[in-house]
Amino acid sequence: MYILYHYPLCPFSRLVRIILLEKQIPYKLIEKKPWVRDYELASLNPAFELPVLIADDRPISSAYAICEYLETLNEEISFLSSNNLDNAEIRRIFSWFTSKFYSEVTKLIFDEKIIAHFVEKHSPRANYIRAARANLKYHLDYIEFLLKTRKWLAGNIISFADLAAATQISTLDYLGELDWDKHEHAKEWYSIIKSRPSFRSILTDRIRGFTPPAHYQNLDF
Amino acid sequence: MYILYHYPLCPFSRLVRIILLEKQIPYKLIEKKPWVRDYELASLNPAFELPVLIADDRPISSAYAICEYLETLNEEISFLSSNNLDNAEIRRIFSWFTSKFYSEVTKLIFDEKIIAHFVEKHSPRANYIRAARANLKYHLDYIEFLLKTRKWLAGNIISFADLAAATQISTLDYLGELDWDKHEHAKEWYSIIKSRPSFRSILTDRIRGFTPPAHYQNLDF
Repeated sequence: MYILYHYPLCPFSRLVRIILLEKQIPYKLIEKKPWVRDYELASLNPAFELPVLIADDRPISSAYAICEYLETLNEEISFLSSNNLDNAEIRRIFSWFTSKFYSEVTKLIFDEKIIAHFVEKHSPRANYIRAARANLKYHLDYIEFLLKTRKWLAGNIISFADLAAATQISTLDYLGELDWDKHEHAKEWYSIIKSRPSFRSILTDRIRGFTPPAHYQNLDF
Repeated sequence: MYILYHYPLCPFSRLVRIILLEKQIPYKLIEKKPWVRDYELASLNPAFELPVLIADDRPISSAYAICEYLETLNEEISFLSSNNLDNAEIRRIFSWFTSKFYSEVTKLIFDEKIIAHFVEKHSPRANYIRAARANLKYHLDYIEFLLKTRKWLAGNIISFADLAAATQISTLDYLGELDWDKHEHAKEWYSIIKSRPSFRSILTDRIRGFTPPAHYQNLDF
């Protein structure tokens, strides 16, 4: 049995949960608040970041390390390709969303809405929110650009790239930040991912004090 | 023949060059300045980041994607283990240095010394340099901590984790930022890596306007 230390609105925690569900690997969830730097989290991951997966009593952290590890389990269900160059493209886009998109969009919104509310006790600062929203438009344009010539973000198969992008987006969507206007291909792509049972199960999570918009769980939004 | 678009002081470019050399894969270097956002770089990597490896006419970017791709070539020389859980630890530490260490230390120093000099035309700002140096001490402590129980950063074999950490450090060392005082294990580890022919060859690079300290190329420093 695997144990996953996670936070419901953390996009990386969501990514790992979805892969565990997709690969039908049984796991137990333990919720941690990412802003509480306690001894337990320090011993699991000295970087104080979620999620942490416990496998054979050994903690694994970093979304990249966990996803690559999970890919070696139940190999019938795979989110990489059998072609090494196609995998390079999958990993490039995975890295785009877990690193660039996260720091330019998700982290700013998460910090100004969640951390500001629970920890710093102030309202979201307009300039940070504005910057994140401006960045988000460029990223949605990029998704739209990729999907004009591809079925999925990194090619013709659903991959880690799609799951990494969609989980970042799902956190923003919970917080009311998504506007699909002018991004038709991207909207259709997200609606297909949202309809997967793995994804639907994480969309039922709720954070006290934050109600997602009405369309959040709908497949037709 | 592979082509690598790189910048000599970019730690990620150094990492990929060293892996290409270690794996004895012939390649041609093309230098690009990471702050020039021209059409060529945009078409190679819309994230405008170096390095970019051209393999079979396809550009691969992101250090993570490139390293994993190179690992599939000349498999006799490997920087991963045959054990999946050991690989998770290698990738966790790789991610630590390419993401956390880079943003907390290398990027700050690089921006304040190189970007400030060539692009923004101002002197390094003391508060950023001070923050980076304070962070660097904690990271050296962490390397020291790991090496007290391990031969290499992620276990008993040299891996991507060591190369990722050492290339970040080599960029800082070029810029005169390393002080090994109180970090004996870390210093010894770095001196062993520095003695590898792959590493020695990149230490001969010079950037106009910046002379590395006298000890930079020495194996005994």
